Amino acid sequence: MIRVGVNGYGVIGRRVADAISLQPDMVLEGIVKVKADYKALVAVKKNYNLYAIDEKSLKSFFEAGLNPKGMLKDLLREVDVIVDASPEGIGAQNNRIYKEFDKKVIFEGGEEHELTGLSFVAQCNFDVAKGKKSLRVVSCNTTALCRVLDALDKAFKIKRARAVIARRAADPDEISKGPIDAVVLDPVNLPSHHGPDVQTVLPHIDIFTMALKVPTTHMHLHSLIISVREKVNEDDVIDVLKGTTRVILVNSKNGIKSTAHIMDFARELGRIRYDLYEVAVWADSIRVVEDEIYFYMGVHQEAIVIPENIDAIRALIGKYSKEESIKLTNKTLGIIQ
Amino acid sequence: MIRVGVNGYGVIGRRVADAISLQPDMVLEGIVKVKADYKALVAVKKNYNLYAIDEKSLKSFFEAGLNPKGMLKDLLREVDVIVDASPEGIGAQNNRIYKEFDKKVIFEGGEEHELTGLSFVAQCNFDVAKGKKSLRVVSCNTTALCRVLDALDKAFKIKRARAVIARRAADPDEISKGPIDAVVLDPVNLPSHHGPDVQTVLPHIDIFTMALKVPTTHMHLHSLIISVREKVNEDDVIDVLKGTTRVILVNSKNGIKSTAHIMDFARELGRIRYDLYEVAVWADSIRVVEDEIYFYMGVHQEAIVIPENIDAIRALIGKYSKEESIKLTNKTLGIIQ
Repeated sequence: MIRVGVNGYGVIGRRVADAISLQPDMVLEGIVKVKADYKALVAVKKNYNLYAIDEKSLKSFFEAGLNPKGMLKDLLREVDVIVDASPEGIGAQNNRIYKEFDKKVIFEGGEEHELTGLSFVAQCNFDVAKGKKSLRVVSCNTTALCRVLDALDKAFKIKRARAVIARRAADPDEISKGPIDAVVLDPVNLPSHHGPDVQTVLPHIDIFTMALKVPTTHMHLHSLIISVREKVNEDDVIDVLKGTTRVILVNSKNGIKSTAHIMDFARELGRIRYDLYEVAVWADSIRVVEDEIYFYMGVHQEAIVIPENIDAIRALIGKYSKEESIKLTNKTLGIIQ
Repeated sequence: MIRVGVNGYGVIGRRVADAISLQPDMVLEGIVKVKADYKALVAVKKNYNLYAIDEKSLKSFFEAGLNPKGMLKDLLREVDVIVDASPEGIGAQNNRIYKEFDKKVIFEGGEEHELTGLSFVAQCNFDVAKGKKSLRVVSCNTTALCRVLDALDKAFKIKRARAVIARRAADPDEISKGPIDAVVLDPVNLPSHHGPDVQTVLPHIDIFTMALKVPTTHMHLHSLIISVREKVNEDDVIDVLKGTTRVILVNSKNGIKSTAHIMDFARELGRIRYDLYEVAVWADSIRVVEDEIYFYMGVHQEAIVIPENIDAIRALIGKYSKEESIKLTNKTLGIIQ
């Protein structure tokens, strides 16, 4: 069994912890949290071992009757792999202590590529990561772009990829973030970071991205314009995406015309927290004109990187093939094929 | 003096009426309205002659003490040009009565191109419209795209233009429209109508557009990807846009980073209803990579077509040059050069 700890229990950490606990070859040794909030209460109800980030949080856990098992260092002694799901930039600060304990580490997309030199998307570079000491699972938008672009590039040879990303401005629990009634350029200066970030995984792809923040809480919405070298039609594109792991096709004929509809579909599926691990591409938006492929896709920002985190754990351990790991992760998470 | 009537007093009609009343060579003979609402009250306070669309509305105007001057037919007897600012599709129905009275007519972008066979943007085809019987002022997004693409095409020869339009979902007074928390594909099937609509004015431009509805009330936000034949850099693009009428450059260095900031800027300018007649291009978003120009621009959906309506009136009358008309319209509306 691979012994795993999760440092940080926010948007990503709590989902990774749940996913680990579903794996037949992994044991969740514990989670590290800062506050004794409702998320800590639910974690304890799930029998997750709770560790504190510092003395102050340890004290607050005792006061809340949460029976903490110790501090981050205590957890590190118990694990083979630690998943750092700390807020952006804090992972890099934590790296010193991980090195001190000589642990394998997974960082998230809020950290810089340079921290580990290895940016990871399972289908693209699982084998490169095998047996490595650490890696970075790229952010939600980058993960989605890599899945789709890697598949289309292998099938049709991408000449250039252009994407405009309408980002959800806040997650559903982020009550202090805006905007309420504006489109915010994110950032004004071009390109957005997503294009260069895709190139940390797929360095040969010519990509340029633009990004906006819009007043929604569910999903990022990508408008894609991809020029390819091979001659293709709409059905070719659909066939390739159908055969790509962690990509699903949705259709307005079934009533899915917005990000809200996709999330309501995920609620119907009965997933925990209505998480959609798959990129959702609108099949009936796919249009090919000459060498250009156009389509829309939705990305559930809270969930899409969860399967990549599970595969990343197996990649670092080094004893699994890419196909074995992806298959097992997909099965345990109920990912639609 | 050109005698003008305005049929319809919603988003566009009330703005066109105000703009007509500012012209030294025009007289607003009256407006046609359906309801005795607050907009009717304000119109009467402005001493606009109020006409009713039917017997029922005539009665309601009398009951509200609004002293209506008559019905649409009574207004038509008094005018040289009628501007039809009815809801989408109603203009086409009204065309029969305009023909009966043998009047020159301006329709708005909600009507089909085929209704008049002439889709109008002042800077692009004023001369084509000179002396014609009727024309259609294209919609807000199409107007904005035509202004910018016409200028860039004349300067650099456009190879292909691609645009993703994040549309405001509702105007500020439209309290029943959604979405609240979703990005809606508008429509799912590609392309959106904007590309073909641009080609009704600029048939030679290779354009493909995608469009989303987002939960905002101010401005449409365009992400543009334009490939050109001439070799250009960022400064060349800025110079061309600076020299283009009804296009202004904004900059995040001055604190303008979102559509809300542009609208607040328009409020500072003291414009009636904070109307921005100009397309606002973010100067510091302009980026050129090889043959592609990228930038963002904001379009005030309620206001941008107002100067085109005024120029369209003069074009139909046929006694003005394009330059004379645009100059006079810009001056009277306080458009920034």
